[in-house]
Amino acid sequence: MKVIVDICVVPMTGRVSVRQEVALAHRILEETGLPVLLHGYGTNIEGDYDTIFAALKKVHLTLHERGVARISTTIRLGSRIDKEQGIQDKLKAVREANSGDEEAR
Amino acid sequence: MKVIVDICVVPMTGRVSVRQEVALAHRILEETGLPVLLHGYGTNIEGDYDTIFAALKKVHLTLHERGVARISTTIRLGSRIDKEQGIQDKLKAVREANSGDEEAR
Amino acid sequence: MKVIVDICVVPMTGRVSVRQEVALAHRILEETGLPVLLHGYGTNIEGDYDTIFAALKKVHLTLHERGVARISTTIRLGSRIDKEQGIQDKLKAVREANSGDEEAR
Amino acid sequence: MKVIVDICVVPMTGRVSVRQEVALAHRILEETGLPVLLHGYGTNIEGDYDTIFAALKKVHLTLHERGVARISTTIRLGSRIDKEQGIQDKLKAVREANSGDEEAR
Repeated sequence: MKVIVDICVVPMTGRVSVRQEVALAHRILEETGLPVLLHGYGTNIEGDYDTIFAALKKVHLTLHERGVARISTTIRLGSRIDKEQGIQDKLKAVREANSGDEEAR
Repeated sequence: MKVIVDICVVPMTGRVSVRQEVALAHRILEETGLPVLLHGYGTNIEGDYDTIFAALKKVHLTLHERGVARISTTIRLGSRIDKEQGIQDKLKAVREANSGDEEAR
Repeated sequence: MKVIVDICVVPMTGRVSVRQEVALAHRILEETGLPVLLHGYGTNIEGDYDTIFAALKKVHLTLHERGVARISTTIRLGSRIDKEQGIQDKLKAVREANSGDEEAR
Repeated sequence: MKVIVDICVVPMTGRVSVRQEVALAHRILEETGLPVLLHGYGTNIEGDYDTIFAALKKVHLTLHERGVARISTTIRLGSRIDKEQGIQDKLKAVREANSGDEEAR
């Protein structure tokens, strides 16, 4: 099953800065070879459901191995059967709708 | 890996009422045999990561088979290595903290 | 605007246990006098949009005053114009749909 | 209170394509004049809490006025008192952490 997923990993490390852990989480998602897009509050990734959720499991296991006691992750998961649509298609759809709308005003 | 997960499935069916689809999603999660708790904006479930995400995949596949064109699901995923804690433990912890606080006021 | 909201506050305190902070967040939501429902991964609350988001702001400000350096909160926000529906209505709708389904099987 | 927020609006319109509604939601957030970043599963926005949640209320009211019967929005909300950090700072922090890590390998 092809899906688009948005993942935000919040490691509870006992330190305020969690950039190393967040960066590591992003890197493990990248290592799937699937298209990813980093944004200011998470990472978009698109592709096979099983591949993505295996990578997310690896994120949790790896962070715990490095001593992170607790992790609270939030995920948005989208699937559809009417057409194929990736991250770039979604960006394009919103941008085009807004540019069309501006012309119409 | 033992996790606590909170799942909210939003089927985009073309109808405003999605209670049948939401109820079916909840039932598929229940059929894992894992502890579940229905609330007003989703379902808590605790247990093995692979079991839960296999069930969630089944939710998406089943709803699509029944004609739901798009699904947008949101998930909170918690794991920890410092101690075992289930849904009921979390409820109890918050209630006890608040009752203690009330006594202290 | 009447809404149903599900709120999960994750305080990054430097300690693994955050039960005091989570309990305090829940209590501030309760103090609105609006219907609330505690579950294993957050709190449901229903009522006026402005009241709820003022209370959530108070949660963040209060936790920061108590020394919590960072907070990462996740929120589900539902509004509808076709009918009134509260937390208990949503629970009932899912339960009835499933009990009907069980009879039908 | 300065916050970073990630917003994903899911309009339940009765149609499968919701690009017009999603684009309108993004545009209302942009009209705050605050920094925004569109990604494949939502919009990042940073700035004053009250301004952002007033804009989000306007999103719901505007979509309902245009006939959207139900809306289910998910939000991540981050605040911190240890330092100022915007969307671009967060992106930079993750990218630098990963580039440092690559050099170290």
